[in-house]
Amino acid sequence: MNKKKIINDPVYGFITIPTDLVFDLIEHPYFQRLRYIKQVGMTHLVYPGALHTRFHHALGAMHLMQLAVKTLCDKGQVITPQEEESVVIAILLHDIGHGPFSHALEEHIVKGIHHEDISTLLMSKLNVVFNGRLSMAIEIFNDTYPKRFLHQLVSSQLDMDRMDYLNRDSFYTGVSEGVISSERIIKMLNVVDDSIVVEEKGIYSIEKFLVARRLMYWQVYLHKTVTSGEQMLGKILQRARELSLKGRQLFSTPALNHFLQSTITKEEFVSNDLHIETFTCLDDADIMAAVKVWTRCDDTVLALLCENFIQRKLYHVDITNYLPDVTQVENLRHKAMKKYGVCYDDAKYFVFTDMISNNAYQVGNANIKILMKGGAIKDITTASDNANLEALAKTVEKYIFCYTKDLI
Amino acid sequence: MNKKKIINDPVYGFITIPTDLVFDLIEHPYFQRLRYIKQVGMTHLVYPGALHTRFHHALGAMHLMQLAVKTLCDKGQVITPQEEESVVIAILLHDIGHGPFSHALEEHIVKGIHHEDISTLLMSKLNVVFNGRLSMAIEIFNDTYPKRFLHQLVSSQLDMDRMDYLNRDSFYTGVSEGVISSERIIKMLNVVDDSIVVEEKGIYSIEKFLVARRLMYWQVYLHKTVTSGEQMLGKILQRARELSLKGRQLFSTPALNHFLQSTITKEEFVSNDLHIETFTCLDDADIMAAVKVWTRCDDTVLALLCENFIQRKLYHVDITNYLPDVTQVENLRHKAMKKYGVCYDDAKYFVFTDMISNNAYQVGNANIKILMKGGAIKDITTASDNANLEALAKTVEKYIFCYTKDLI
Amino acid sequence: MNKKKIINDPVYGFITIPTDLVFDLIEHPYFQRLRYIKQVGMTHLVYPGALHTRFHHALGAMHLMQLAVKTLCDKGQVITPQEEESVVIAILLHDIGHGPFSHALEEHIVKGIHHEDISTLLMSKLNVVFNGRLSMAIEIFNDTYPKRFLHQLVSSQLDMDRMDYLNRDSFYTGVSEGVISSERIIKMLNVVDDSIVVEEKGIYSIEKFLVARRLMYWQVYLHKTVTSGEQMLGKILQRARELSLKGRQLFSTPALNHFLQSTITKEEFVSNDLHIETFTCLDDADIMAAVKVWTRCDDTVLALLCENFIQRKLYHVDITNYLPDVTQVENLRHKAMKKYGVCYDDAKYFVFTDMISNNAYQVGNANIKILMKGGAIKDITTASDNANLEALAKTVEKYIFCYTKDLI
Amino acid sequence: MNKKKIINDPVYGFITIPTDLVFDLIEHPYFQRLRYIKQVGMTHLVYPGALHTRFHHALGAMHLMQLAVKTLCDKGQVITPQEEESVVIAILLHDIGHGPFSHALEEHIVKGIHHEDISTLLMSKLNVVFNGRLSMAIEIFNDTYPKRFLHQLVSSQLDMDRMDYLNRDSFYTGVSEGVISSERIIKMLNVVDDSIVVEEKGIYSIEKFLVARRLMYWQVYLHKTVTSGEQMLGKILQRARELSLKGRQLFSTPALNHFLQSTITKEEFVSNDLHIETFTCLDDADIMAAVKVWTRCDDTVLALLCENFIQRKLYHVDITNYLPDVTQVENLRHKAMKKYGVCYDDAKYFVFTDMISNNAYQVGNANIKILMKGGAIKDITTASDNANLEALAKTVEKYIFCYTKDLI
Repeated sequence: MNKKKIINDPVYGFITIPTDLVFDLIEHPYFQRLRYIKQVGMTHLVYPGALHTRFHHALGAMHLMQLAVKTLCDKGQVITPQEEESVVIAILLHDIGHGPFSHALEEHIVKGIHHEDISTLLMSKLNVVFNGRLSMAIEIFNDTYPKRFLHQLVSSQLDMDRMDYLNRDSFYTGVSEGVISSERIIKMLNVVDDSIVVEEKGIYSIEKFLVARRLMYWQVYLHKTVTSGEQMLGKILQRARELSLKGRQLFSTPALNHFLQSTITKEEFVSNDLHIETFTCLDDADIMAAVKVWTRCDDTVLALLCENFIQRKLYHVDITNYLPDVTQVENLRHKAMKKYGVCYDDAKYFVFTDMISNNAYQVGNANIKILMKGGAIKDITTASDNANLEALAKTVEKYIFCYTKDLI
Repeated sequence: MNKKKIINDPVYGFITIPTDLVFDLIEHPYFQRLRYIKQVGMTHLVYPGALHTRFHHALGAMHLMQLAVKTLCDKGQVITPQEEESVVIAILLHDIGHGPFSHALEEHIVKGIHHEDISTLLMSKLNVVFNGRLSMAIEIFNDTYPKRFLHQLVSSQLDMDRMDYLNRDSFYTGVSEGVISSERIIKMLNVVDDSIVVEEKGIYSIEKFLVARRLMYWQVYLHKTVTSGEQMLGKILQRARELSLKGRQLFSTPALNHFLQSTITKEEFVSNDLHIETFTCLDDADIMAAVKVWTRCDDTVLALLCENFIQRKLYHVDITNYLPDVTQVENLRHKAMKKYGVCYDDAKYFVFTDMISNNAYQVGNANIKILMKGGAIKDITTASDNANLEALAKTVEKYIFCYTKDLI
Repeated sequence: MNKKKIINDPVYGFITIPTDLVFDLIEHPYFQRLRYIKQVGMTHLVYPGALHTRFHHALGAMHLMQLAVKTLCDKGQVITPQEEESVVIAILLHDIGHGPFSHALEEHIVKGIHHEDISTLLMSKLNVVFNGRLSMAIEIFNDTYPKRFLHQLVSSQLDMDRMDYLNRDSFYTGVSEGVISSERIIKMLNVVDDSIVVEEKGIYSIEKFLVARRLMYWQVYLHKTVTSGEQMLGKILQRARELSLKGRQLFSTPALNHFLQSTITKEEFVSNDLHIETFTCLDDADIMAAVKVWTRCDDTVLALLCENFIQRKLYHVDITNYLPDVTQVENLRHKAMKKYGVCYDDAKYFVFTDMISNNAYQVGNANIKILMKGGAIKDITTASDNANLEALAKTVEKYIFCYTKDLI
Repeated sequence: MNKKKIINDPVYGFITIPTDLVFDLIEHPYFQRLRYIKQVGMTHLVYPGALHTRFHHALGAMHLMQLAVKTLCDKGQVITPQEEESVVIAILLHDIGHGPFSHALEEHIVKGIHHEDISTLLMSKLNVVFNGRLSMAIEIFNDTYPKRFLHQLVSSQLDMDRMDYLNRDSFYTGVSEGVISSERIIKMLNVVDDSIVVEEKGIYSIEKFLVARRLMYWQVYLHKTVTSGEQMLGKILQRARELSLKGRQLFSTPALNHFLQSTITKEEFVSNDLHIETFTCLDDADIMAAVKVWTRCDDTVLALLCENFIQRKLYHVDITNYLPDVTQVENLRHKAMKKYGVCYDDAKYFVFTDMISNNAYQVGNANIKILMKGGAIKDITTASDNANLEALAKTVEKYIFCYTKDLI
């Protein structure tokens, strides 16, 4: 059977599955699971269209990767068919380790293990299933493959991951201002000294890309109500674990129960297959089904949080550049103790502070390089006459102060 | 607080919430529940973008209703502000009675009760909550309000329901050929003798609308793989009920359990609040969470169906105009008995026939009326020189023959 | 210099120029002239965005041709690089013989010579310039090349010409209902027995394509006001020739003058290079510049027609299935004689009848063939259960009755 | 007759003509003339879709003005129906004084008279025709109307003029990165102290708007090839005037001739109706028709420039931040003298320097004001944490050095 299927995609029109191996990977349950994990957590509370999944994002990034490889080959770069398939697989599987609600619950299901570690782990397991045919993809993913520009296509300031998610998130939220011209940017990529560079005429597109990303952070990813919903879901999971670890039996699927009832270290997670196999059974539905049932739990804190969540009585959120006022926080906590009849520690579920940043979506110090017409390579921040580009790429950290609205 | 909120919508750009009452209805848990019920069931198995919900569809239909009211008023029709709010509420709530996966499971959760009956029931309950302010909306919905054209905007061949869903389903599947120009059709609506009519110059748009709808049926709604997925989910629920009714304890949320463990008649459903309250706790997550757990059930049939479903080993489906060959069906059933070690009756879960139609989306005999330039009213089928329009509007019934793929 | 340029196109995003020869053809003045010839004549009078040109259309059709060739090659058809370049050139140049305002004035500049004849003539001349490198393209264009399916890509019911113009005309008019999914249709093309066929799953797309085309005829191409504008422009040219042939000196560019002052037979046109060279100097500007000046001409008829045209006092147009009433026509003509002080023959410039058809955009008896899943080939009209498809593809002829509005 | 017509617009879907007076103004020949004046001059040489006209832009800006007025009224601003009609008329007519090719030839048809002066003049004449019903619109246009925020909607950093043209130019060029969310920005407008302000949550949209504008300057408006084409057209007109003023008879329409044969001061232009009436007969066609004929002129310079223009042998253009090297310029001029057999002064038609800026599209010191959530008003440059916004809004001047390509 020819497995070169074509998939309809509202964002790009059509996505082509390039090889049989890629087709089989997509069919694998590890990958199919991503169908049930929303790309942007609880964002749909504000933007009702934002229900797209990691599954769809991975396919989209795979599509752009094919465009990028074709562009670079047209410009004379040598990329062998096996390298092409491998870099396509690397991007396809880059998010396979995400758990329910993607970033929103990352710290609440398995603590201290980053989703990228789980991606690596699952790739290794798939590599066994597929008789080592993923080895090169794994090397590219881990940046141990000699042609390092291939890794940059998977993970860097201009990787196919963010080329896709910015576009896709814009599209599904309806925040049309976040749309970037991925196709145009990709057409301006080239490779110099084993590094991805952007040709000079692409400077304004890059500038627009950075501004669009910034807009998406504040308008979407770190939107107050989104933040509030995700914080509340996090607190719900935290409370459920707290109760479970104390031996309380809560309604939940067996898979979710596994992670509620014990604290698993990274070492245990990696060394015992049971953990990873159980992890691959989890998706958004496990959480949502449980949260609805927990609204009737006899633990006041858990029941109240879940009730608020389902009824969309989310936290009030203040986002500030400065540390929230301690006295105000304490006052509200005492108010919460009285109002909900809970102890001081439990009041922290209703009144708390935290930090947020646009970090989750950044790569740090890998800069964008511009290939000038004369052949020189410059950093975008010196190549452009927009003095602020450096600032745009920087991590911004803000404080949040959350509390249930009926306290005021 | 002014509740005139604006919601981003990838399909129409912005949706405005017109009044405080409408805002409060949207905030009500009955309506918020629709956030977790996919508009087109398992369609996302084929079109990964098709994850949009009844919630979003209802908002979209509400948006179009506002356009329609404005258009008719501009043309001199009298629609009072209360009528406007009521017809908007009627369309907003028209689908509030849908259960998990919309049509896909309609017959498998509560038998013999159509989702529209449940919508009526929930509207009555909301009417109590909102002190009778929904009475006119309910009259319009039930077609007992004197200005009957208002009902037609809610439910007829050209209602705002299908104006929205055709567009929205096209948009999210990426089947761009299903896109209809709702805005243009709405601008050509008028009212004659208390009936919605389309002005003559809109004939070609209506023709295109009917063809787009037909295309969506066969390309999307009744697509083989979609049909297969939804049939399998139905069989899973059927088996779960069969086991539950026999007293077998299956993992499930309490709400789902309620409907698995007993068969509720329409009379009981209507007369006992427990049923409707439990119903409003159900959404897609209850089903998906259970199905994943049931893959490990010790009932072979249920476990196998769920395993197949999760691993996307869907039924092979033949769609034909004629009755499938009985001998072939029987042969395959016997093969299934042997292969899966099940009895003849249980083999029917793996090999069966059924009928499908484009019925679910139709209204029957309410025809589209054209207002000719001379003032006469004609049926679209006589007004157009396209002899086939009548056929396009007709219900088409087909036979399906489904069986697990490993039987052949 | 590498001439593989990329051109921005609002319809498809980017258009790539595939080879140096194609680049040089585009740069040639014969082709550049198409920049100044509007694709859809006076359609912009109704749809102000419809200013796109034959130049842009030819590039778009070239883009789709590249998609089509790639699709067929992916399916195993053998198309050599030279054949690919030739079929691309054939579609690029298929309209190079169009004169000012495309179809609108086709009969009024050079009588009895179809624009396709002129295209052939210009291709021959280009073939000389480019040392015979267009020979294969010319054979494909004239359907004398052995692989006849290549000609079908250039000219047939599903050629790249109409794939582009339907989309492009929809796009620029804003009549979004005319949009067809060219990309999807192209992906479903195949070749059987040297003929282009559509794979069975494409049936609904083809049906939608035929309906979209039909909609575009009546909503755009044969729109009353468009028809009226083009008829008036035709009458202006007719009058100008009548006067010029009688020896009256009218303001005009030398090139236009050449065609106004003499009647050139097809034989003369073909045999004398002066005619074709002068023809390639003409574009929309020659006409518009002259029409504006002629508003001040001392010939009442010409001045009045031009004045009406510029001031947008277009003819009233009745479109009917039956012959207009002779008495009514005669009565109006006599009214015109009195009102404008002209003789009976001149009154015909203000009151006349004619026939229009959707013919100009059709190819006649070349049917659309469907490749059924079983391998059989069926005509679309028997493959589809839409009984009306045959009718949709048919030529429709209508009568028009035009008269200046101030006569009534 | 009800003149509330609806016009299809590819950019916004539909544009509504709000009142009979507005309809009549659109029908007036002064306004209809804008149908034949391209919005962005010779930009179509690079972006073949960019053929849209001042006519279409004016309608689009009128559409956005209606949105803006509705938004402000919804927020409680008092705008009377007459004020609404007037501000709509003011934006509709703001560009009515543009001559052929808009900015591209502004200095070459009538020297020293800005198109805005001509707009004012034509509005006054229309005001006479329409019995003073444009008086308020003229006051708003000239900023003498008491509610000064109405003028800001017509002309300021965030006026409906640039809200439309940025979008429209992006749309028709296909440079999708220039797309701005006009609708969203408009929804965030408000009025404080008789000034237009943007609500705080719109900061990122404004930032994106400024970046999009910047991108459009360099990618489109000041694109090398566009600049080259417009410079060449300017030089052609300059030469034609030079020859005409010396008494040489050149082919041209009478209207163009009027402006070639004499130099009209602003005073003469304003005081003598003949000038303005002749001006309103000019459009792009007069220029294009003449340029084609002038390719055969016996003046070497004019013939060569026109030949180059038609054959698209445009100037080579260097854009620099510094003054071009004088020696290099002089050397090339001497080369041109020899190559083309012309004197030193005439060589300047083939080798010259000039300055360009993004000025034409800016308003100078009218800043964008942000309405903070607390009620304070801040300048965008202090309200945003993007330090570079000030720079983005600044005028940038660059030097250009142009010469015919065959000189090197």
